[in-house]
Amino acid sequence: MQPTILITNDDGITAPGIRNLIDSVKDLGKVFVVAPDAPQSGMGHAITIGKPLRLDPVNVFEDLGVAAWQCSGTPVDCVKLANDIILHGRKADICLSGINHGSNASINVIYSGTMSAAMEAAVEGIPSAGFSLQDFTFNADFTVSKIVARAVTKRILTRSVPEHLLLNVNIPKLQPKDFKGIKICRQADAKWAENFEHRKDPRGRDYYWMTGKFMSRDQGEDTDIAALNAGYASIVPVSIDLTDEGTRNWLLQKYPDLS
Amino acid sequence: MQPTILITNDDGITAPGIRNLIDSVKDLGKVFVVAPDAPQSGMGHAITIGKPLRLDPVNVFEDLGVAAWQCSGTPVDCVKLANDIILHGRKADICLSGINHGSNASINVIYSGTMSAAMEAAVEGIPSAGFSLQDFTFNADFTVSKIVARAVTKRILTRSVPEHLLLNVNIPKLQPKDFKGIKICRQADAKWAENFEHRKDPRGRDYYWMTGKFMSRDQGEDTDIAALNAGYASIVPVSIDLTDEGTRNWLLQKYPDLS
Repeated sequence: MQPTILITNDDGITAPGIRNLIDSVKDLGKVFVVAPDAPQSGMGHAITIGKPLRLDPVNVFEDLGVAAWQCSGTPVDCVKLANDIILHGRKADICLSGINHGSNASINVIYSGTMSAAMEAAVEGIPSAGFSLQDFTFNADFTVSKIVARAVTKRILTRSVPEHLLLNVNIPKLQPKDFKGIKICRQADAKWAENFEHRKDPRGRDYYWMTGKFMSRDQGEDTDIAALNAGYASIVPVSIDLTDEGTRNWLLQKYPDLS
Repeated sequence: MQPTILITNDDGITAPGIRNLIDSVKDLGKVFVVAPDAPQSGMGHAITIGKPLRLDPVNVFEDLGVAAWQCSGTPVDCVKLANDIILHGRKADICLSGINHGSNASINVIYSGTMSAAMEAAVEGIPSAGFSLQDFTFNADFTVSKIVARAVTKRILTRSVPEHLLLNVNIPKLQPKDFKGIKICRQADAKWAENFEHRKDPRGRDYYWMTGKFMSRDQGEDTDIAALNAGYASIVPVSIDLTDEGTRNWLLQKYPDLS
């Protein structure tokens, strides 16, 4: 039987990235799409609990032979609705998210709606991967991304994988001839240095635009940032158990009365 | 010099939980508050990138002698603005988030705005803790929570702590006489079983309310859920490095060509 492949994203159902992802894997199983009806970048693992959700069929991928629904909620809402309403609780066999317009390497994993959708699927026990291209533009070239997405998806589908498998896959902005291959990595230690831009509205009231500069603090050669800089796509397996075991042991030693 | 203590939450600046948190630690340093101007529960690690942010001083904690600002954005936005705009990039010495009305134990850590605010601070290198009480109600009794919040904050302030320290602290709904103490734990393996409620609006169009049942899959005695069930407050140290080392090693062995 064909595997059921759920595809979602955070840039919204009309973004070129999701169309390219669908196109790259559409013959590998029964693909269906549940994606936000508007851009949801930076939504992290947000869910919608204070207002109701819409979920409506759309025909935007009819040319690719793929059924699709748009959802008024977040990427995580999309995954929840896909499993519970469209599949009636049966669950997809694999979940793919993206292809995001912009990198989700390193610390970006915690802000990313793309990765949060994939993480939600992984919590459900659905092997999943989020794909992100290091190019924010609408006209980004997804040629290499499609090759990577197809290769990764085939490997997830054809081999037995660990429970809660969740892959953060980032693809460098390169032409196929310059692309070096895929590397398995760890998450680079980095952060965003914020620098809000302060403005005044026409009534003289203050407001702020978030800006920021990505700053890697990691010189390791085994990180996702290092792989991307060297021309490779990076795969970081991501854990849904956020327990910091090192600090836990430190705390247990320091405070034996709290064990 | 007094430590600078940043306090935020996700239930909004008017929630009783944040007032109780301020009250429990206000003599331990120079406390200031930056919190959402409206409830932001379930916002996860969302940030506001597509619209500008407001940040306005308010006097809601004047009776406690504490300066406060309300922000139009998410809990994570609050932490970013606090450090960048209010402290002019100097950064707080410690960040406390909560006290949340409702548990953030186990897998709830990934959906929680309370914990995401604390996580944002930890990424910045600010030792931080999120506090959550197992009681969703407005009239929740924060007596035990205040004891726990004060004890944890004092320990963070008086001892050298690991870099990026981030604690997920959950407090059981108990009277002081029934409270057993504090335990250091790991995150229990659990998930939400979704069950959307399907309704029709007055125009006959479908919509859905998210509901769900919390399901623990973990029988371990060292988990946060087990501690709470036994009458203890739980502390789970949380990692900002989400790399799944076990799966990374599995992948490297399975696919040596991708190393």
